[in-house]
Amino acid sequence: MTTATTLRHRHLLGIRDLEPGEIDLILETALAMKEVGARPIKKVPTLRGRTVVNLFFEPSTRTRMSFELAEKRLSADTLGMTTAGSSVVKGETLGDTARTIEAMAPDMIVMRHASSGAPHQLARVCRASIINAGDGTHEHPTQALLDAFTIRERKGTLAGVRVAIIGDLIHSRVLRSNVWLLTKMGASVIACAPATLMPPGLRELGVAVTYDIDEAVKGADVIMMLRVQHERMHGLFLPSAREYFTYFGLTPARMERAAADAIVMHPGPMNRGVEIDSDVADGPWSVILDQVANGVAVRMAVLYLLAGGEGEG
Amino acid sequence: MTTATTLRHRHLLGIRDLEPGEIDLILETALAMKEVGARPIKKVPTLRGRTVVNLFFEPSTRTRMSFELAEKRLSADTLGMTTAGSSVVKGETLGDTARTIEAMAPDMIVMRHASSGAPHQLARVCRASIINAGDGTHEHPTQALLDAFTIRERKGTLAGVRVAIIGDLIHSRVLRSNVWLLTKMGASVIACAPATLMPPGLRELGVAVTYDIDEAVKGADVIMMLRVQHERMHGLFLPSAREYFTYFGLTPARMERAAADAIVMHPGPMNRGVEIDSDVADGPWSVILDQVANGVAVRMAVLYLLAGGEGEG
Amino acid sequence: MTTATTLRHRHLLGIRDLEPGEIDLILETALAMKEVGARPIKKVPTLRGRTVVNLFFEPSTRTRMSFELAEKRLSADTLGMTTAGSSVVKGETLGDTARTIEAMAPDMIVMRHASSGAPHQLARVCRASIINAGDGTHEHPTQALLDAFTIRERKGTLAGVRVAIIGDLIHSRVLRSNVWLLTKMGASVIACAPATLMPPGLRELGVAVTYDIDEAVKGADVIMMLRVQHERMHGLFLPSAREYFTYFGLTPARMERAAADAIVMHPGPMNRGVEIDSDVADGPWSVILDQVANGVAVRMAVLYLLAGGEGEG
Repeated sequence: MTTATTLRHRHLLGIRDLEPGEIDLILETALAMKEVGARPIKKVPTLRGRTVVNLFFEPSTRTRMSFELAEKRLSADTLGMTTAGSSVVKGETLGDTARTIEAMAPDMIVMRHASSGAPHQLARVCRASIINAGDGTHEHPTQALLDAFTIRERKGTLAGVRVAIIGDLIHSRVLRSNVWLLTKMGASVIACAPATLMPPGLRELGVAVTYDIDEAVKGADVIMMLRVQHERMHGLFLPSAREYFTYFGLTPARMERAAADAIVMHPGPMNRGVEIDSDVADGPWSVILDQVANGVAVRMAVLYLLAGGEGEG
Repeated sequence: MTTATTLRHRHLLGIRDLEPGEIDLILETALAMKEVGARPIKKVPTLRGRTVVNLFFEPSTRTRMSFELAEKRLSADTLGMTTAGSSVVKGETLGDTARTIEAMAPDMIVMRHASSGAPHQLARVCRASIINAGDGTHEHPTQALLDAFTIRERKGTLAGVRVAIIGDLIHSRVLRSNVWLLTKMGASVIACAPATLMPPGLRELGVAVTYDIDEAVKGADVIMMLRVQHERMHGLFLPSAREYFTYFGLTPARMERAAADAIVMHPGPMNRGVEIDSDVADGPWSVILDQVANGVAVRMAVLYLLAGGEGEG
Repeated sequence: MTTATTLRHRHLLGIRDLEPGEIDLILETALAMKEVGARPIKKVPTLRGRTVVNLFFEPSTRTRMSFELAEKRLSADTLGMTTAGSSVVKGETLGDTARTIEAMAPDMIVMRHASSGAPHQLARVCRASIINAGDGTHEHPTQALLDAFTIRERKGTLAGVRVAIIGDLIHSRVLRSNVWLLTKMGASVIACAPATLMPPGLRELGVAVTYDIDEAVKGADVIMMLRVQHERMHGLFLPSAREYFTYFGLTPARMERAAADAIVMHPGPMNRGVEIDSDVADGPWSVILDQVANGVAVRMAVLYLLAGGEGEG
């Protein structure tokens, strides 16, 4: 694999579309961006005079804040739009909303939407660069990139690293983006969930599948815990939060089966006592807050590269 | 008509208060602002260090975003306040909210409010310049200005242009502002709506009135379709969306009666299949997205002129 | 008392932790900041490149806007987070929200929260400076500071000034912060409320207590009216708004008992005709809008001092 010198596409819609060299380019660029975040004046003029619109059709704190911080550290002008108080309420189609925003000539649009494929629809009508900040159960590419950055920071590489991904996998765009990224970069992935929360087709993507968390954790270098939504707890998918924790919660006892220097990740927000024990979340294995910190750097890198890798400064 | 060299008033509360020379000044200034929006760095330092407060007491996407973009392109500091989470919830009077915001000494306030006359009340207590972004069923002056800009862009002039305005006219501040502007500038206006949605008194303003869309469209240079609110569809005002479309929807067939080079406008958000057929909305006649693009330029012009036409840069 | 040259703490969590010399330093600094707000370009580069996160878990207009204006006048980058659409909805603990925001490395966090002590919890996990913008019924330090600034502006000093604080005292963080500040600075305080709205323990803090507004007002130099929440009106705490006004409303007749040059204050939003008569709110005694204006200057001073009193410019 050779590090790319530029991204081939104008948009970042998913990890699936990226080549390993492009992933490498983003991660290398994020290293430089992380250095900016360590300065007292955490600001570079790269995107001065560029407008970034943050279109969040689903509630979000960390992803929205992380993008907004990244944009401001690059000196972009940012505009926010959330569903409440928007034309969506008035029954406008997504296509018309997209064309309307495009007509105002923003340079970039960051979009989160409950429907898989919504950012792709936006990309078809916009000259602006579109960044997918999570679409339905499809992809969440910047999450996978910040996860990869965090793994590389600790393990030096992605190649050959053994990653267990455990939790509500069937509803998870984080799973999907991580599977694409990790398998492209040579990591081995084992997926673990209750049968009702396991998506079909993972084996075809080169992922090992188990319904036993002890098997998933065994020898893992990286354990990625995914959130279980409260609304899945009752009935259809899961009997109760307590029973979920018993069978699928990550505890210090279970960590003993992992590699000696294993790290634990979680995209947040965490349900302590449901998918993860507080002693693990706050323990020596946890890189959960590194993920958050690295998220800003990775998003700065993506914004910088999609803007053409130059800017005024 | 001579183009004015400055605006006579500190506020923009409605088109009714403007003289033709002032309208011309705004439209000419918007031409220069549109040029700024075409640059890679879409930013001028005109309003640097000035504070603009965006007070939206009614939901809005396109108008709020358009103003915010205009403000940021002029380098103003912007502050937003929407109804949710505001003192309004706590029962404060509009007068007290106005005086409170005024005490913080913003330079300009952009206000949308469900009550006709609310921005006028604000103007009475504020040293800040007030821009009406839509008040009740009264006026929406920047919408009429961007409509006029778009017509001039296509037709070269407003004088003598035949404009048909069709839709829910009785609840429309866009109608009112457009009637004032178009008649002042020498255009001829024909209004068309179902009887239940036709406001009284239009003829006294020099507007022709019809209840037949085919008559309205006949020979029109400009066809301005206005949104029919979903909440009007059931019962009181209209029997159904489907019946509305049959009698008042703009279709390609109806466009054949218009002038050969007629343009179609809509302030958005559109109800496709209710007031307008998708083949018209997306067809060669449509300048609907030009309206959106021009909105930013027109609002930059208004902000610039109300700030005194100078600024630091 | 000697004016301090710097603040001893990195956070502003309450007035209780401040020494008189520190209060004096903030008020003196605010004088200089007020001068900035009187310039045409109300902006200094002090906090350029610093990030301030505004975390409002309770609705607020004036406090949030006042902080945001203060931040922008100091050239900080500001990020807002309100409860709606936040991880709080998803059941994340406050501790995890705090650590997540901290991981993004903001320089300062302004926080309002319904739970007393929430900003203290934030301060324990954050390197960022925390400013308490109101926590439960505990403290609202910048409100007390702007009140003190306004009193000094009119009375020249706080020492020996007679202050009556009247209204819903039991639920009031404004009362608590003002009691700490005024008693530290040598003012004398009398508290007045219906028995159901009077907190215990005030006498131990050196505050005189009365249930009779006429006694409270008698000879007062400063009358500080506190808001009575609508939700207290029915049943448990108060029989009705009308009866409250009869027994505890501030009227021009009652003002005759105060000092000849007495001033009237209110933190807003006001309930006209409940705790205060419009003739008082809008009368010659009122400094209510001065409080709002001074709030921006005082918050600029706090931000400036917590940032270390320097900055790039």
